[in-house]
Amino acid sequence: MSIAEKVVAIAQDARQAALAMARLSTTTKNDMLRRMAVALENGAPDLVVENLKDLEAGRLKGLSAAMLDRLMLDDKRIRGIADALREIAALPDPVGEVTKMWKRPNELMVGKMRIPLGTIGIIYESRPNVTADAAALCLKAGNAVVLRGGSEAIHSNLAIAKILQDILKEMNIPTAALSLIPFTEREGVLEMLKQEESIDLIIPRGGESLIRFVVENSRIPVIKHYKGVCHVFVDQSADFDKAEQIIINSKTQRPGVCNALETLLIHKDVAAEFIPKIAASLTALGVELRGDEAFRRYAPSATPATEADWYAEYLELILACRVVDDIDAAIAHINRYCSLHTESIITSDYSRAQRFIREVNSSCVMVNASTRFADGGQLGLGAEIGISTTKLHSFGPMGLEDLTTTKFIVYGDGQVRE
Amino acid sequence: MSIAEKVVAIAQDARQAALAMARLSTTTKNDMLRRMAVALENGAPDLVVENLKDLEAGRLKGLSAAMLDRLMLDDKRIRGIADALREIAALPDPVGEVTKMWKRPNELMVGKMRIPLGTIGIIYESRPNVTADAAALCLKAGNAVVLRGGSEAIHSNLAIAKILQDILKEMNIPTAALSLIPFTEREGVLEMLKQEESIDLIIPRGGESLIRFVVENSRIPVIKHYKGVCHVFVDQSADFDKAEQIIINSKTQRPGVCNALETLLIHKDVAAEFIPKIAASLTALGVELRGDEAFRRYAPSATPATEADWYAEYLELILACRVVDDIDAAIAHINRYCSLHTESIITSDYSRAQRFIREVNSSCVMVNASTRFADGGQLGLGAEIGISTTKLHSFGPMGLEDLTTTKFIVYGDGQVRE
Repeated sequence: MSIAEKVVAIAQDARQAALAMARLSTTTKNDMLRRMAVALENGAPDLVVENLKDLEAGRLKGLSAAMLDRLMLDDKRIRGIADALREIAALPDPVGEVTKMWKRPNELMVGKMRIPLGTIGIIYESRPNVTADAAALCLKAGNAVVLRGGSEAIHSNLAIAKILQDILKEMNIPTAALSLIPFTEREGVLEMLKQEESIDLIIPRGGESLIRFVVENSRIPVIKHYKGVCHVFVDQSADFDKAEQIIINSKTQRPGVCNALETLLIHKDVAAEFIPKIAASLTALGVELRGDEAFRRYAPSATPATEADWYAEYLELILACRVVDDIDAAIAHINRYCSLHTESIITSDYSRAQRFIREVNSSCVMVNASTRFADGGQLGLGAEIGISTTKLHSFGPMGLEDLTTTKFIVYGDGQVRE
Repeated sequence: MSIAEKVVAIAQDARQAALAMARLSTTTKNDMLRRMAVALENGAPDLVVENLKDLEAGRLKGLSAAMLDRLMLDDKRIRGIADALREIAALPDPVGEVTKMWKRPNELMVGKMRIPLGTIGIIYESRPNVTADAAALCLKAGNAVVLRGGSEAIHSNLAIAKILQDILKEMNIPTAALSLIPFTEREGVLEMLKQEESIDLIIPRGGESLIRFVVENSRIPVIKHYKGVCHVFVDQSADFDKAEQIIINSKTQRPGVCNALETLLIHKDVAAEFIPKIAASLTALGVELRGDEAFRRYAPSATPATEADWYAEYLELILACRVVDDIDAAIAHINRYCSLHTESIITSDYSRAQRFIREVNSSCVMVNASTRFADGGQLGLGAEIGISTTKLHSFGPMGLEDLTTTKFIVYGDGQVRE
C-alpha cells in the first residue's frame, strides 16, 4: 500500500471505531484513561529510550535548545502527562447531557442531547505530550482521534500511541479509535486532510505557518486561531493599581503566548497621570514601549508606533500603546485591529463595563481581569483542546463540550402531523 | 467593474454592515421586520408586475407547471410572506442571551453570551419567498445577509430586496446588511463562494445538485443536508394502531419532502400480524412497496427490494420494507443506510425506546412520533433557516439560535494570573 492508501485506511477505520466509542459508558471511558495513565508511567523507561532517538536526530538536524527542550521527555514530564490523563478522567462526561427539553402544544417532548462529533484529526508540532493530552480529550468526549505529530517527535509519538492503544486492545475497544499517522512525509498529512468522509473536524496545534498550511489544504472543517493581538483599555474611571497589576500580568507573566497583551489603550483624561506610572513600571520590567504621539508626550523614552504595530503579535516584551478619546474610539480600535482573541477593559464605571462586554467582537471579552485568563483551564472548561477565533461551532477556548454536537430527541405517544 | 469585482464589493460592504447589525436593539430589529412586512403588502402590485416578467421568461424557457407555480406571486402569497416576517419579529431575540455563567475559585464570573455569526450567504433556487424569509431570520439574529437566488426568479427577488432595503434606508441601517447578488451568471455565485474573509457561513437551499455545486466550490463553511432517508422501526411491542397512523402520516402526508418516510423496518416477531395490515393500508393509499424476502412472505404483492432501495430517497409514494431480527439489527441498518436525518421507533418498551434514542446517530431521533415533525417550526424553533446533517455547529433543523455563536464574557475585580 502507498502512504496515501494507508492514510485512507486509517481514516476509514477511525470512522468505524467512532461508532464504538460513541457507545462507551462514562465509567468505561474514565477507567480507560486511568489505565492509560498507569501504562504511561510504567512505560517511562521505554519512552525515554524512544525519546532519545528523537533528541539525537534533532541535535543532528541542528534544532535549537528551546526546540530540543520541548521535545524532551523524562520521568517527571511523563508523570505530568499521566496526571493530565487522570484529570481528564475526573471531568464530567459531556456525552448524553440533555442541554434543554421543552414541550410542544401537541404534547411532544423535544430535547437536545449531546453526542460525540465523530472523528477528530489533530495535527501538531514538536511537543510529544499532545499525543496523549489531545487524544484523551477526544476519547473522553466519545470520539475517535487521528493524530499527526511533527516529524521531530515521531519515535516518541509512536511509543506513546502504542502504550495507549495497548490499553484499548486490553479493554476490547477498537484500537483504530486512536491512530497515529506513522509517516513523516508531507503526503501523509495532505491525504489526511482530504478524508472528509471519515474525519469530521481538524484541529491544528502549532505556529501560524502550520495552521495556514492546514487551512489551505483541508477539505475538512478546521477550527483554528492564527494569532492573539490582545488589548487592555484603561478607562478614565480605572483604579490605577488594578490597571497596573493587570497590564503587568497580561504583558509579562508569559509574553510568548497568544493570550499575552500586545496593545494598551489609555483614555486621554488619565493619560497625564497614568502613562508615566505604567511606563516606568513596564520599562523597569524590560518591556519596550512603542507609542503614538499622545502616548510619547508622557513617556518620551517610548519609540514611535507605526500602523504595523497595531496589528502586531509580538510574543515578546514589546507593547504598542495608544491614547484614545473615549470608549467609542477604544472599541473601534479593537474591533478594527484585534484578532478576535481577548480584550479587557479596566474601569469602575458600570455602563461602560457593560458596553465593552456587549460591543467588543472578540471571543473573550473581560472587565478588570488579566488577558492571561483566556485559557480553557483558567475559565473552568477543565482542559483545553484549542482556541477558535472563527465563529462557527466554537468561539474562544475549547473544552470537552466543543468536541461534541447535539441531536434532537423527540418523545411522542403516537403524534402525527396534521 | 467586472461581475467578480462587484461581488467582492457586495461581500465587503456586508461585512461592514454586520458590525452595525450586531449592535441593533431587539426593539429596532422587530420594528424593522414589521415595517418590511407592511412595505411588502403595500408593494404587492409592483411585485406582481415584476413577478410576471419571471413567469413569462419561465414559460418561454419551458419551465414545468410545478416550477412556474413555485415561482408565482399573488396577493395572497405576498400576504403570506409578510405574515412570516411578523412571526419572525415576534420570536425571542437570541442575541445577548447569556446561556450560562459560573464562578471560578478566584471569584471571576465567566459566562457565554450569544452573539451574531456575522455575515450569512444564502444560495437558493426558484421560490422568491426565500428572499424575504431567509433574510428576515438572518437580520433578526443580528447578521448581515448576502442572497443569491435562482435566475428564474431574478426580477421578483430584486423587487423584494429593493422593498426591504428601502426600510433599512428609512431606519438609517446600512442597506448592505441585506444584499442580493444582481447577476444570474455562474461567475457571480463562484466569486461569492470565495469571500471567506467577508462571509462567515453559506446555507444552500435547494435540490441535491445545487448543494453539491456549492459544497464543491466553497471556501466558506457550508451547512447543508443532501437528502433524507428517514426510517420507522416497528418494535415487537408496538401499538399497531399508533404504528399504522405514524407510518401512513410519515409516508403519505407529503411524500416529496426530506422528512418523509423512505424505509420501514419491522421486528420479525410482529411481521406475520402487522405486515398484511400495513401493506393493505399503504397499498390502498397508492404506495408502492418494495420488500425483502421476509417482508414479501406476508405482502406477496410487494416487489423485491434491492440493495439500492436501502439507500433510496424516493420523494414519492414508494416505500422500502425490511424485516429485522431485533433492535440491534434495526439500529445497525439505520446507522448504515440513513442520511443522519430522522428516524423513529414505534414501541411500548421503555428500555428499547431509550436505547434507540441513545444509539441512533441521526440528527433527529424519535419515539412514537411521525418523522414529519423533523422541521424547525414543528419542533418549536419558531422558524427554520435550513437543516444540517453534518455535525459541526448545528445538527438537525436550524432556527435563529443556529445563526448565532457565543463569546466568553468575564467579570473580574482586578484578578491576575499567578
